[in-house]
Amino acid sequence: MNDSQSSKDVQETASDTARRVAEWMYENDAATQAFGMRVEHVAPGYARLRMTVRPDMLNGHGTCHGGMIFTLADSAFAFACNSGNALTVAQSCDIDFVNPAREGDDLIATCEERYHRGRSGIYDTVVKTADDTPVAFFRGKSRTIGGPLVEDAPRQ
Amino acid sequence: MNDSQSSKDVQETASDTARRVAEWMYENDAATQAFGMRVEHVAPGYARLRMTVRPDMLNGHGTCHGGMIFTLADSAFAFACNSGNALTVAQSCDIDFVNPAREGDDLIATCEERYHRGRSGIYDTVVKTADDTPVAFFRGKSRTIGGPLVEDAPRQ
Amino acid sequence: MNDSQSSKDVQETASDTARRVAEWMYENDAATQAFGMRVEHVAPGYARLRMTVRPDMLNGHGTCHGGMIFTLADSAFAFACNSGNALTVAQSCDIDFVNPAREGDDLIATCEERYHRGRSGIYDTVVKTADDTPVAFFRGKSRTIGGPLVEDAPRQ
Amino acid sequence: MNDSQSSKDVQETASDTARRVAEWMYENDAATQAFGMRVEHVAPGYARLRMTVRPDMLNGHGTCHGGMIFTLADSAFAFACNSGNALTVAQSCDIDFVNPAREGDDLIATCEERYHRGRSGIYDTVVKTADDTPVAFFRGKSRTIGGPLVEDAPRQ
Repeated sequence: MNDSQSSKDVQETASDTARRVAEWMYENDAATQAFGMRVEHVAPGYARLRMTVRPDMLNGHGTCHGGMIFTLADSAFAFACNSGNALTVAQSCDIDFVNPAREGDDLIATCEERYHRGRSGIYDTVVKTADDTPVAFFRGKSRTIGGPLVEDAPRQ
Repeated sequence: MNDSQSSKDVQETASDTARRVAEWMYENDAATQAFGMRVEHVAPGYARLRMTVRPDMLNGHGTCHGGMIFTLADSAFAFACNSGNALTVAQSCDIDFVNPAREGDDLIATCEERYHRGRSGIYDTVVKTADDTPVAFFRGKSRTIGGPLVEDAPRQ
Repeated sequence: MNDSQSSKDVQETASDTARRVAEWMYENDAATQAFGMRVEHVAPGYARLRMTVRPDMLNGHGTCHGGMIFTLADSAFAFACNSGNALTVAQSCDIDFVNPAREGDDLIATCEERYHRGRSGIYDTVVKTADDTPVAFFRGKSRTIGGPLVEDAPRQ
Repeated sequence: MNDSQSSKDVQETASDTARRVAEWMYENDAATQAFGMRVEHVAPGYARLRMTVRPDMLNGHGTCHGGMIFTLADSAFAFACNSGNALTVAQSCDIDFVNPAREGDDLIATCEERYHRGRSGIYDTVVKTADDTPVAFFRGKSRTIGGPLVEDAPRQ
């Protein structure tokens, strides 16, 4: 690390790092892109993603497959728990489905950190439709297993 | 319902019904098809599905997105908990990720009923690679909310 | 129901009902009393309970038994989800233990409603020590199965 | 460690170690004793415990407090996940309550290891009444954090 980079690290805020990590993750995350998810906002320990329910996301009952709702919630969790620029993965997740989502629905997943200490974290994602109807409540538990995702950004 | 159909119903075993429901569900389940899942075996309260990890299923860490693993486990759960020909949905699910899956891995999800009474059920899905490495342990809780999926098959 | 009672019902606020239900529940809840729990505050969809870790609550590792921490969190959940004066029970609960509790620790469990519609609810309890160290994060899912707990109070 | 001890270690089976660890744990576990739990059987990755529902274990609805059912399931989990003689604690637990338990019921909790690798494990406990009615399904995730519980027994 050279001097100019070091001084840049010091100046970069946690919010800036969260945004840079999110950009890097999104570019490299084929699944999140394949589902047409948009990262609307990221901040330290926080992420909000949006996904429109497509015909190929419906299950045999004609509603959005629970796996697609989970994937959206889990992606929001991934962006939130990696926002500090340390490689972090999901250990376990719980999801409660409270209302079905339908084709064309715009789903918004908002993830917030509940707890973080050392390598362990707990994050809650709520998935709602655009008219604010709750679809699912998700809780993810994370484990930090590695170093920086964006090499020239600080670990926050 | 005519007489011949009625007598057919009586003769149809729970295993036959499970297979017919699975065929009907698969034909109508766009998401399960879109992921290239194959239904390998269904029986009353049981389903085994297979899915190959594609490049568009990878996350920003280069491993299979947890949402894809969940979706496979959840589809196996759906086939198992609907096998009695009564419309049944997921209420809540827990998943533990124990090993990453990689591009090209053949994932096999095996779901078994643990408990069933009235409208409520508990099902366990294990996801493994073809060489028997466990990838995820999933527990789904179901709620029966409606009538038959296949109109001319009995409710088992 | 006579006229004076009816008019009383109309005037009773949801907060008053929550308190009356909590008093009734506490008087009838042998387990919550046996653990020395104190109900510090109740409100609609909310409860805060306190319990001091006693020597007979320790496990084989010399720390507070996870079952005691769960019991405190679950009691807070029970007071919160019954606060509307309709008999409600726990369907399922998840708990994450993040720090051990020790003999003499004063544990405070705060439960808040996350979601409620019809007969189903989702409630989050956080258990902390008196110096604000998180001990456990608990999520409970409730199901309303019956009528009023306090006969002469309204269902809120 | 002297020679005679070393040769003893080699000869001691995993089943013998599980029993010795269980005896040690039970003697030191005030909570498990206070609830009158009996350890009926232990083996590597396995434990079966029994508890009779006492009047002081009832909740405000007159049935066994969910916390007591959890505590029994959690104790069975503790005996099972420590059976290899390495200090192991619960990280998180999920429980589903499927039938109420009543005063005088003899509850039997049977815990089995589902997965174990390195420091992480997944264990399932089923709690039933003596007449085989399921009361609760519990899944515990463990983390090994230390050395032997019984100093002169091997780590299995």
